[in-house]
Parts: sequence; C-alpha cells; structure tokens
Amino acid sequence: MQILSDIAEDLKLIRRRRPLVHNITNYVVMNETANAILCIGALPVMSHAAEEVQEMVSIADSLVLNIGTLSPEWIDAMVAAGKAANKKGIPVILDPVGAGATRLRTESCRRLLSELRVAIVRGNLAEVASLVGIASEVRGVESIAADNSPERVALALAETYGCTAALTGPIDFVCDGSRLASIANGHPLLAKVVGTGCMSTAVVGAFAAVQTDPFAASIAGLTAFGIAGEIAASASGDRPGTFHVELYNALHSLTEDDIYSAAKIDVSDVGR
Amino acid sequence: MQILSDIAEDLKLIRRRRPLVHNITNYVVMNETANAILCIGALPVMSHAAEEVQEMVSIADSLVLNIGTLSPEWIDAMVAAGKAANKKGIPVILDPVGAGATRLRTESCRRLLSELRVAIVRGNLAEVASLVGIASEVRGVESIAADNSPERVALALAETYGCTAALTGPIDFVCDGSRLASIANGHPLLAKVVGTGCMSTAVVGAFAAVQTDPFAASIAGLTAFGIAGEIAASASGDRPGTFHVELYNALHSLTEDDIYSAAKIDVSDVGR
Amino acid sequence: MQILSDIAEDLKLIRRRRPLVHNITNYVVMNETANAILCIGALPVMSHAAEEVQEMVSIADSLVLNIGTLSPEWIDAMVAAGKAANKKGIPVILDPVGAGATRLRTESCRRLLSELRVAIVRGNLAEVASLVGIASEVRGVESIAADNSPERVALALAETYGCTAALTGPIDFVCDGSRLASIANGHPLLAKVVGTGCMSTAVVGAFAAVQTDPFAASIAGLTAFGIAGEIAASASGDRPGTFHVELYNALHSLTEDDIYSAAKIDVSDVGR
Repeated sequence: MQILSDIAEDLKLIRRRRPLVHNITNYVVMNETANAILCIGALPVMSHAAEEVQEMVSIADSLVLNIGTLSPEWIDAMVAAGKAANKKGIPVILDPVGAGATRLRTESCRRLLSELRVAIVRGNLAEVASLVGIASEVRGVESIAADNSPERVALALAETYGCTAALTGPIDFVCDGSRLASIANGHPLLAKVVGTGCMSTAVVGAFAAVQTDPFAASIAGLTAFGIAGEIAASASGDRPGTFHVELYNALHSLTEDDIYSAAKIDVSDVGR
Repeated sequence: MQILSDIAEDLKLIRRRRPLVHNITNYVVMNETANAILCIGALPVMSHAAEEVQEMVSIADSLVLNIGTLSPEWIDAMVAAGKAANKKGIPVILDPVGAGATRLRTESCRRLLSELRVAIVRGNLAEVASLVGIASEVRGVESIAADNSPERVALALAETYGCTAALTGPIDFVCDGSRLASIANGHPLLAKVVGTGCMSTAVVGAFAAVQTDPFAASIAGLTAFGIAGEIAASASGDRPGTFHVELYNALHSLTEDDIYSAAKIDVSDVGR
Repeated sequence: MQILSDIAEDLKLIRRRRPLVHNITNYVVMNETANAILCIGALPVMSHAAEEVQEMVSIADSLVLNIGTLSPEWIDAMVAAGKAANKKGIPVILDPVGAGATRLRTESCRRLLSELRVAIVRGNLAEVASLVGIASEVRGVESIAADNSPERVALALAETYGCTAALTGPIDFVCDGSRLASIANGHPLLAKVVGTGCMSTAVVGAFAAVQTDPFAASIAGLTAFGIAGEIAASASGDRPGTFHVELYNALHSLTEDDIYSAAKIDVSDVGR
C-alpha cells in the first residue's frame, strides 16, 4: 500500500534529517513529549518566551502548540510563534488539551485557529467536538463521552477551520475535508499514562516536519505512535509504569518492518 | 476492622466514579502526581491560570494545592480556586512543601490556611511544625529533624486550623483534633525518589474526592500509598529508578486484599 | 592517582553531609535533575521566585542556574540568587542550554557571566563556543557541529570569564585557564534521553557543594556521571527508556571502587 511505504519513508527521513520540532507545551508533559520526539528520531526544543519564540521558529521545522497548562501570556507567545511559522511555511500542529472544560481553553483554541493557519489539530473526541460547537462531555482533560460519531466531528473541524483533524480514541480518525482515514492501532494502556495524547501530537509534529501533506503526516504519526504502543504493551503486562518506559524504547526501536506488518489503516473519500 | 473495609470501599469508589482531582501544584512533580492519581484510578487535571481555576473547580471533586515551586501569582490562583472549592463544598488538600525554609512558603501556607477552609494538610514533620510555630530544621524541602513528637505537632496543627493533619514520616500520623491514627506502612525507598511526598498528597486528594470524612480519607490515602510503596520496593532492590517505575505499577494494581493484608493502622482518641 | 582518591573522597562527603543544591532550572528537567541530585546523595531544592531565592540560597551549599526554558523574570531571579550566592561564598554553576540558538539565550548567559562570579559553566561545544564568539552550529538545544577544537573553546571560555569550563561531548574537557583535563567516560545512550546534559550539570553542582576547587569539582561530577552512564548502559541494551531508569539506579549505587576502576581522566597544564 502506498500509504505504508510513505510512512516508512517519512520515518527514515526523520532519522536522517533530524528535524527540529519547536514545542510550546504544557508543564506536565514537557519532558515526556521531548523524549518522544527524540526517541522517534527528531530533535525537540521547548521555548515559550515571547522574546525568543520567533527566532526559535526560524531554525525549526515544525511547531507544536499544546494548551494543557495555559495562561494568557503563553497563548500570546503561541500566536507570535505561530505567525512566524506561517510566514516561514513550516506546519503548525495544535493540541487543544481540555478544550471544552473551560472557556479559557475553548476560546484560546478558537483564537489560535482563527489567527493562525493550523495544519493539524490532534485531540480527543470531546476536545475536538467543543471546537466545532458539538455537545460533548469532558472531565478535566479526559474525554468521557460525546454523542456524535468521531468521523462527523473530525469532518466538521476540517471543514470549519480548513485543517486536518487528527482525532484519537479507540480508533483514530484523520480527516482533511476530502479524505478520511481510520487507524486501528494503539493499546488501552496508553490511557493509563499521563500525556500519551500529547506525546502522539509531538510525534505527529515530527512527521509533519518531513512530510508536507498534513493528512499523510497525521496518519504517519498516529500509526507510528499506535504501533509503538502495541509493542510497548507486549512487554509490559498491565503495568502502566513499565509501559511508560517501554513506550520510549518502542518509539526508538520502531522499524519500517513494524509499520508494514502492524499498521491497520483504512483510507477513503469523505462520503457525502 | 471497620477502617480497613472503609479504605477498601473507597478504593472501589475511586475506580468506579473516577473523580476529577484538580491540582495546582509545583513544576517538579506535575507529571508524577498526575500519574499517581491516574494509577490509583481517579482523573487528574492540572490548571493554574486565574482565568480558569474557578471554572475547573466547578467540574472537580477535590482540589490539591501544593506550593513546591510557588510564586505570588500562583498563590493568588490557589486562593481563588480554594474559595470556589469551599463554596462548592469539595475538599481542599494542602501540601506545604518547604514551609519553614523561606518566609514566602511559610506565610503563603498561613494565608491559604486562614483564607480557606482546608480539609487536610499533608506534610512532613518540619513543614507542619513550621506552620504552628514549633521549632524544626528544614533543608530546602526535606525535613531533617524536629524536636517535637509528630503526634504533638499533628494535634497542634489540627487544633490551630481546624483541619486534619496528615503528617508523614517513618510512621505517618493523622489527627483531626479528636482522633489520632498512626500508619506504619511505607518504605525507605520512598525518600530516594523526588516527589513521593507530593504523590502521597495527590493520592489523599483522590480518596478525599469520594470519602467525605477528611480523617478517614487521609488514613486511606496514606495507607494505600504506603502499601503501594512496600509492594514496589519488593520488586526493586535498592534501586530508586526502578522503584519509581514500580510505584506506578503498584498503585495501579493495588487490590482490596492488599489493604486487608498489609495495612498497619492504629486509631485512638486524642489523649489529654 | 590523586585525582581519583579526591573524587572518591568527594563522593563520600556528598553522602555524609547531604549538601543542599539550589536549582533555578528549566521546566523540562526539573524532576530529572532533582532525582539525579538525590541519587548521587545530595539534597535538591527547586525555587525560582524573586521573593524567596535569596533566602533559599542562605541555606544552600551550591547554586545551579540553567536557562533551558528561560523567560526574563527567571533571569532576574537568577541574578538575584547568584549575587546572594557570591556574597555567601557558595559556588554558582551555569548551564547555558541553547546558547547560540537565540539572542535571548546568548545574551542572558553573558549577563549572568558578567554580573556574577560563575565558578563553573557546563555546556556542549556549540553552547560554549557561542559564549566566546566562536562560530558554531546549534539546532535548538543540541550541538550539531563546531569548527573548533573543544580544548580551544574551553580555554577561551575560562580565560574570558575567569571560570572553569566543563565542556561535554564524546570526550569531556575541563579547563580553568591553567589546567586542562579530558574525561573519556560516558556513553552514546546519554544523547538519547532528554536532559542528561542538565543532569550532569546538577551532579557537578552536588560535587561543587563539597569540593572548593571548581576544576576538581567539575572533573569529579563529569567523571561520576559518565561512569554512571556506562553502568546504566550495560544494563539497558539500545533502549533509551530503560537507560533513563538505570541511570538513576547507577548514580545511586555508584561506589568509590567504580571510580577507581572506570575513570578515564587525563590532566595536563594548558599548553601555550
């Protein structure tokens, strides 16, 4: 399948080029997302000061914005960095952590989506639903339930903001408005470690740094991360602490063969 | 013993209800305390912006305030969140990290204790002693020595602020002014990993989210955490890195049977 | 060799005295550097508020400043803490994370180096080169290449700022202007975990808290950390997640015999 060889090729590119992924992210997962980026083969940098974000963007290959522990000054820095990224032409990836839980989070995401050209939004069902005004239930930063099909929510986001929606859950859905992919990789243990959603966004950011099609980059990042989760789970039993450690090992050791043998991707045109 | 079946019942409730524990905590342990809360079965959320803490409290089941890397704006946010929690009627749990080491820390704790109804204070001997003006020695955030019996210090805190004191050390003491409990669970390796005190506070916060009696919630949280420490130690040798990983595994796998077979709790009336 | 017995003696002193290492460091590695300090045997404290840093310095034995996720207020706090440390006579150790990548980082380091007496600068080749105006290539916080020999760069820094340069890489170089040491310990896996550079700085900070000669403290810290890396690698295969865990285990279990049997240090006068 073309998509599998593309992912394998992108993985090779990450490890050869070592793109720099600039993150303005939350305090909870700074270390974890940086290690995920390093393990998949790219280089992470965390930088949030208004005084330097534009300069850091100037040497970066993609920009990941994550609102997990936001405050107003950080949002301003995200806007400044995002505008620099748009101007330079590198992709902006947004993780709307906890959107729907508070007005600050929902409105900050909407501000970012309106002031910036965001290439990819990676979130869970409730977060993404809140950004398109679809009712959902969020518990802090966890999606509990939403009354709508994830495909419909992903499509609504893609159409509303002209971006690629990368919506993770038991099955992940990626939609850019015209194409829809489902990815059936991953493992329930991913829900038992804090920040694995943020880590998946960071890995998508690494792929977006070498793959210019956001739809393809999203599929590649979520598939690679999901397969790494499966490999890590096979070495962990039902032990989240051990799984967390093995997840880094699996991201680091992930091979092109792992992609070919384990990927469960289905791509179709958006049905109307 | 009634207390053991209560703890077992509370543990079951946490895993069934998945209460949301809102944390305003320090940068050093954000990830670690969030993972401890998730592993015991509750849901963590970290949120500190003045613009959203009240709204986050409105969906939370308990509020943990931890001053480990405080700055003035964060204390203001803690006060705002604490007042919202008081109004809503959910418990506020305070971890006075490093109280006694600097005036800012001691005075910030006293401010929180005077402006808020704090249900539980979880700290070490030197920290708690400093809050009631009893001489102690603190080295940064580590309690080195204090000239007073922990029981007396716990009682003084409970009486001064009308809260439950959960004072951890080789033996933990919980006192609400009329009742005193000692808990002889735990393991020396807990002192060799940064943030285990903060993690124990977070776990107490998870129990307080389902158990309305702060005295019972404190005993339950410290007992569960102490037993998890013992289980983790049995799999770790004298290796703090490994122990840290096993601690998450043990919190996740902790059973009601573990509580019944390993708890070492003694409860009595406060002697006068 | 005198140097080996000095390192062994310093390691013993750290574990007997348990000096307090005050860190004003970046969000990404706060937990990791604190654990490294605790595992080697010292006590860490993280504190950044302008309102308390001077008071925290007053009980500390060394001060580590790390600019990894800096913002202007943090730099001001570093200056205040550093002046208090200078006045008290405890060593200041600077980690210029990402110097050369942005003007804010480069200029902040130069400000710290001009307003404070910095005992030791621990950085990689590109970072240190940027502080003495030597051309280099930096990718975010990673040193990619520099056209100059690390010995020359280390000497230039030592001469320019009157400090000890501790320049890490495949081989580490320590130079105080008159003496030059090379240390051939360490392992490639250290480059596959985020924050190991920062951890090495923190461990140097622990040694500087008991060893008054910054040149000797730098050699001791880098040697101890490098050997711990080798021990950790021998238990990890090519698995960075496992290596990260084993690194804490190795710092904790490091013995004087490990120093004697594994240290690869060469000391000479600076050739002119």
